[in-house]
Amino acid sequence: MENRLHNFNAGPAALPLPVLEEIKENFLSFRGSGMSITEISHRSAQFEEVLDDAIQRTRRLLNLTDEYHVLFIQGGASMQFCMVPMNLALPGKPLNYIDTGVWSAKAIKEARQQVQEVKVIASSEDRGFSYIPYDYCVDKEASYLHFTSNNTIRGTQWHQFPDGDGVPLIADMSSDLMSRPLDIQPFGMIYAGAQKNIGPSGIAMAIIRDDMLNRVPHNLPSMLKYTSHKENRSLYNTPPTFAIYVIDLVLAWLEDTVGGLGRIEEMNRQKASLIYEVIDNSEIYQGTAEPSSRSLMNITFRLSDENTKERFLVEAKNNGLQGLNGHRSAGGCRASLYNAVTVESTESLAAFMREFEESFT
Amino acid sequence: MENRLHNFNAGPAALPLPVLEEIKENFLSFRGSGMSITEISHRSAQFEEVLDDAIQRTRRLLNLTDEYHVLFIQGGASMQFCMVPMNLALPGKPLNYIDTGVWSAKAIKEARQQVQEVKVIASSEDRGFSYIPYDYCVDKEASYLHFTSNNTIRGTQWHQFPDGDGVPLIADMSSDLMSRPLDIQPFGMIYAGAQKNIGPSGIAMAIIRDDMLNRVPHNLPSMLKYTSHKENRSLYNTPPTFAIYVIDLVLAWLEDTVGGLGRIEEMNRQKASLIYEVIDNSEIYQGTAEPSSRSLMNITFRLSDENTKERFLVEAKNNGLQGLNGHRSAGGCRASLYNAVTVESTESLAAFMREFEESFT
Repeated sequence: MENRLHNFNAGPAALPLPVLEEIKENFLSFRGSGMSITEISHRSAQFEEVLDDAIQRTRRLLNLTDEYHVLFIQGGASMQFCMVPMNLALPGKPLNYIDTGVWSAKAIKEARQQVQEVKVIASSEDRGFSYIPYDYCVDKEASYLHFTSNNTIRGTQWHQFPDGDGVPLIADMSSDLMSRPLDIQPFGMIYAGAQKNIGPSGIAMAIIRDDMLNRVPHNLPSMLKYTSHKENRSLYNTPPTFAIYVIDLVLAWLEDTVGGLGRIEEMNRQKASLIYEVIDNSEIYQGTAEPSSRSLMNITFRLSDENTKERFLVEAKNNGLQGLNGHRSAGGCRASLYNAVTVESTESLAAFMREFEESFT
Repeated sequence: MENRLHNFNAGPAALPLPVLEEIKENFLSFRGSGMSITEISHRSAQFEEVLDDAIQRTRRLLNLTDEYHVLFIQGGASMQFCMVPMNLALPGKPLNYIDTGVWSAKAIKEARQQVQEVKVIASSEDRGFSYIPYDYCVDKEASYLHFTSNNTIRGTQWHQFPDGDGVPLIADMSSDLMSRPLDIQPFGMIYAGAQKNIGPSGIAMAIIRDDMLNRVPHNLPSMLKYTSHKENRSLYNTPPTFAIYVIDLVLAWLEDTVGGLGRIEEMNRQKASLIYEVIDNSEIYQGTAEPSSRSLMNITFRLSDENTKERFLVEAKNNGLQGLNGHRSAGGCRASLYNAVTVESTESLAAFMREFEESFT
């Protein structure tokens, strides 16, 4: 057995061990084909089965109606920051964005390059993006309302999604898609870079409602049109076959082993509570997100000074706890508790945090 | 030992067995890290080392001077079809393209969407793209001259690259980059989807000369600007870390085990000869490319009728020979003999083709 770490990386992040073991086991011959999954044609029946299974599992896990299409697109969420306004802005109708930090800001910047009128209808910048702004007013005429469902850097998460009041919602769900049940109905589109909860880096999952496709301008480059990807069932060009294979295995694990999104949400709540409880009862750890906006995915906290933080990170590493440094733009510490991080890993972290505090005081 | 096939897929294609074995061996713990390569942060020292090694090996294999930058970009060659004209067209200066079949035509179509004046200065459409058109006249004022170095579908290849007469060359080298030595000097840029000779699908390698970066318009979306990728050393957003890791392993195999591009070219010539010799001495196999334009990478041929072809493909498969069907747009048969296809696999194919002909006549 390999000596594995407890991995709290923010993304690329931990994958379920049974998934990694299955990939390893079959790496030289995928399902008895005599070829590695990386050597199989994207037009083969073998790969079509993988792609179709990934789509069907996504449909079942998220309870998608036939109105919604599941697409896989290269370029991660960052490519979606420009594709969303290119494809889905309606002429003369403003875009509405809510700004909850770095990722929202990047989406806003790319939208402003495409479209004249981009309105930021709410922002939590006034208190360092430490909360989710529930106070906003949506333009009735807006093309869409865009928000980021979970902020990995500041550790905040929308627990109740904004009310678009008839305007289609579009959400970057990179860091919490598939971590909890979702009512898709108010969404025109959701998208997620895979490397947090659903797979490896280099691919985004996009779920788009059929009526939104009518907005796609004809004169966009083929690779940047949602219609190209929809009409060719994500095979407009050669897709990242390995990434889709891993996503399929992760979704199979989520559906068949874990038992679906209701169950994973319970586990994610349990894991987050273990760490927030340590923070809330501590003299040395200070949570950075306002309690009502706290993320179940990324738990951000500070220690009294840089020296203590460094000591904390070094000792954590010596205890097999990896990836606890905060994002370079925010400082402090961060524990990412995505779906594949086990309750056991989280308990190890909670125990270490308590021991560290005891040794310190 | 796994029961592996002889894999002649056109792409995604065979990868070197030692590379696949190394991936498998280390899949649960990359270089003793306690994490899979798919779970490691793209900002970690471990991944930086992989990325840097892939770049340095590319530089050494292709003898690149400091003027050239090696970038990894998502979206395959298809994304480059639009990025090249978006980034590198000079205002008021025509684009020159040479059309040698489907992939050139796609590049031309995407260019026409971006730029008013796109001139096709040569085409081999008149004889079904069965040859490379060496007769053309480049506009002295052209922004660049674009061509496809190898046509996977028709089995043709440029053995002597076009003379740009001072105009920078840009080439889609998806299916023959790293299969032979290259004089980079006349090229402003080359690009290649990885899934033929250098890695898995879902990533393109782009090699761009420094002066070309001055052409990049400021107002492009960040993900579509070569300058974003250059300034951030291919880490503008989370790259496909697994794909870059595999590319690094393939390049290490090419440099350290095979012995470089001169040696792989010899092997590729030897392999292609084995099959072309069978075709040239056959009553039943008919090569589709004109002999002087024949590809060392993709050998295309026909059998007398559809029934014979089907029998050929079925018997080939029964003999462990996989991926010999021609592209759906061209029909016939095709054997792709990329770098990772061994001389032994090629000998097996040649022997089978002879036996099939004998059994048939």
